[in-house]
Amino acid sequence: MNSAAICTIGDEILIGQIVDTNSSAISQALNRIGVKVETMVSIKDDRAEIIDNLRRLCDKYNVVIVTGGLGPTRDDITKDALRELSGSKSYIENEAQLEIVREFARRRGMELLDLNRLQASVPDSCTVLTNIKGTAPGMFFKIKSSNDFGESLLFSLPGVPYEMEYLLPKVINHLNESLKLEGIFHKTIMTFGIPESVLAKKIEHWELDLPEYIKLAYLPNPLTGIRLRLSVYGDKSVGCNKEIDERVRSLSDLLGEHIYGYEESTLQDEVFKLLKEKGKTLSIAESCTGGKILSLFTAIPGASDILKGGVVAYSNELKKDLLSVSDSTLVKYGAVSRECAAEMAKGVHEISKSDFSISVTGIAGPDGGSDEKPVGSVWIGFYDGVTNSERNFISTGDRIRNIERFSAEAINFLRLQLIDN
Amino acid sequence: MNSAAICTIGDEILIGQIVDTNSSAISQALNRIGVKVETMVSIKDDRAEIIDNLRRLCDKYNVVIVTGGLGPTRDDITKDALRELSGSKSYIENEAQLEIVREFARRRGMELLDLNRLQASVPDSCTVLTNIKGTAPGMFFKIKSSNDFGESLLFSLPGVPYEMEYLLPKVINHLNESLKLEGIFHKTIMTFGIPESVLAKKIEHWELDLPEYIKLAYLPNPLTGIRLRLSVYGDKSVGCNKEIDERVRSLSDLLGEHIYGYEESTLQDEVFKLLKEKGKTLSIAESCTGGKILSLFTAIPGASDILKGGVVAYSNELKKDLLSVSDSTLVKYGAVSRECAAEMAKGVHEISKSDFSISVTGIAGPDGGSDEKPVGSVWIGFYDGVTNSERNFISTGDRIRNIERFSAEAINFLRLQLIDN
Repeated sequence: MNSAAICTIGDEILIGQIVDTNSSAISQALNRIGVKVETMVSIKDDRAEIIDNLRRLCDKYNVVIVTGGLGPTRDDITKDALRELSGSKSYIENEAQLEIVREFARRRGMELLDLNRLQASVPDSCTVLTNIKGTAPGMFFKIKSSNDFGESLLFSLPGVPYEMEYLLPKVINHLNESLKLEGIFHKTIMTFGIPESVLAKKIEHWELDLPEYIKLAYLPNPLTGIRLRLSVYGDKSVGCNKEIDERVRSLSDLLGEHIYGYEESTLQDEVFKLLKEKGKTLSIAESCTGGKILSLFTAIPGASDILKGGVVAYSNELKKDLLSVSDSTLVKYGAVSRECAAEMAKGVHEISKSDFSISVTGIAGPDGGSDEKPVGSVWIGFYDGVTNSERNFISTGDRIRNIERFSAEAINFLRLQLIDN
Repeated sequence: MNSAAICTIGDEILIGQIVDTNSSAISQALNRIGVKVETMVSIKDDRAEIIDNLRRLCDKYNVVIVTGGLGPTRDDITKDALRELSGSKSYIENEAQLEIVREFARRRGMELLDLNRLQASVPDSCTVLTNIKGTAPGMFFKIKSSNDFGESLLFSLPGVPYEMEYLLPKVINHLNESLKLEGIFHKTIMTFGIPESVLAKKIEHWELDLPEYIKLAYLPNPLTGIRLRLSVYGDKSVGCNKEIDERVRSLSDLLGEHIYGYEESTLQDEVFKLLKEKGKTLSIAESCTGGKILSLFTAIPGASDILKGGVVAYSNELKKDLLSVSDSTLVKYGAVSRECAAEMAKGVHEISKSDFSISVTGIAGPDGGSDEKPVGSVWIGFYDGVTNSERNFISTGDRIRNIERFSAEAINFLRLQLIDN
């Protein structure tokens, strides 16, 4: 069995100055080759801390990836801690890396300082992963482990994300050479519009019926709904896809349109695909979501193929002037109403000459709302050039969360309409 | 001495499916009250793992914050591990939380499942932090520690960021009550539009002139610019504000309009304030940013006081039909041009009858662009009802980054125009 630990070194992460994105990138890469990340640890630039933690991790996991703590300044003592940990006595200067360090200095018109030069010298016990993106090389150590796997493969990488990303494939290559890699198979099913507890109840028997070697995980996400991940490890993972496909089929019989996609697809990705297939265009009229839905679609490369654009009619004037929402509707039913949503969808459809359009009007909070229309109330409208359809619901989050929820629900409503359409 | 550990539980982070943003938020909050985070750990939903790690952390640190692993489904076993760790024998149902769980079910028109009901029951050894944002409550335990501080304060919080953020202040309150906290004073200065190295050079002498007990930290952020944080720890922190204020004054003499605010203010917060003071309104015309700027403003509670709304004119048709951009402009100069930006700003101003308006038109990529207008090119327009002003620049990120950068630059341009106006 291969199991890994990821250790980030440095204060920036511990004081919350930066969010650690390296660990997730590394974990995904290891996962793909069937090396399971069992733990992630962040520790400070402290010699004893580094040695204690890496010793503990090497005794428990046969792969350890370390990032950070390799800068030229004196608060970076990772390298010497690694030297001690690996039982190395001395440093050697790595010619390839030194040339790169020289080149960096040259380009910046700086003379080569000893501090810079030191970056190219490494414990003689390590294999160097030459780093052309920065001055600090990656290092590959084999560390004695008290565990029955005898030795742990430890990689030290720079903390700068694009330097780490450059070296990561080299790490994967070394692992492929050094390890007897166990197979792994993942299938992720994206669901929406069904609360975790209801989902769990709905698929209870299906879940109990899963063979022991197929692992199920619930991965909830407020915006994308709940992801169900099926995983198979080891020999069983070879040729398990037929079995998995059947399980997924019977799952989709249970969940129907609650399943909107697979792997890391999003609701807007699916709508984008549906519209491209149909060769149709979309326009959007937003009130309380204030452009959130438009921005979710425009984040997709090639969005212009399907998106004409839209209107953020935050004020009632704009609802009237731009979207031709009638005075009487606003007076009689208010801006948060089925009628207003319908007229907004129709209005943006007309000015944009799109094939389909959606609209959202609601109360995001924290203020506003009434007993009959509390904060979190929303109406979503859809118009296909002929007929209107609407739905409403109530979200129970704060302002930001309500806006996100309204947006996701609107996109999902659009998706369902397009499927039926 | 108070030292803390943050532990996140759950596979989503370990397999790299989500990036852990909670830990950095928690660390910043603890930092503000002078509790130093010494380590962060991510572990899987495994009973033994949870107990071993939390035991180890409680023996070493007197504050331990745990997030995640509290969902209703069967892969969450954190709560019972905490029960065992705290030496509790039994569960009690927490009335306040149960009422919230009931309310959630009611609002969603669902019957209350046992799975939901279980969320409200907690080990009898804990103090409940009622969670109105979700169904799982926060829990506060006092765990025996082999360390000389005797017991460790352990808080368990939901992993959903906005639920965690809601409970975090309650955690801070408990820590303030339970711990003898060292004094601490922070002042954060928000800057925009000045690269870190240039900034560092500009304030070099000012920085050298700081008394030893005032610590300075650079906190860069792609969207909000570079934050400068001044910190004073210990007895000196009492009554140091006059001294700090003077230092900040001399700093603002050096940086002028590069300083846009203090503490955790954002560019849009400052624009919101400026417009409210003036009692003026805003409208926005977006092309490549696709609603991002509108959504940043509508995320602010009370946005309707200053925002009329806007148009996302993604297609040239909409630029013409809605914003009255002239054919000749599009033909002669193209959509990404000073002229188009000016007409878009004017156009949205007219239809929305706002006092001020801004427009953004550019190429976010990955496709499109030319030698003379590469991907990342953008024009930003401003109109005050009388005169237009525009600026352009080139961003060098990927699509998402470019959209964020365009948006931040546009809002900052608006801010500078409002200051001069």
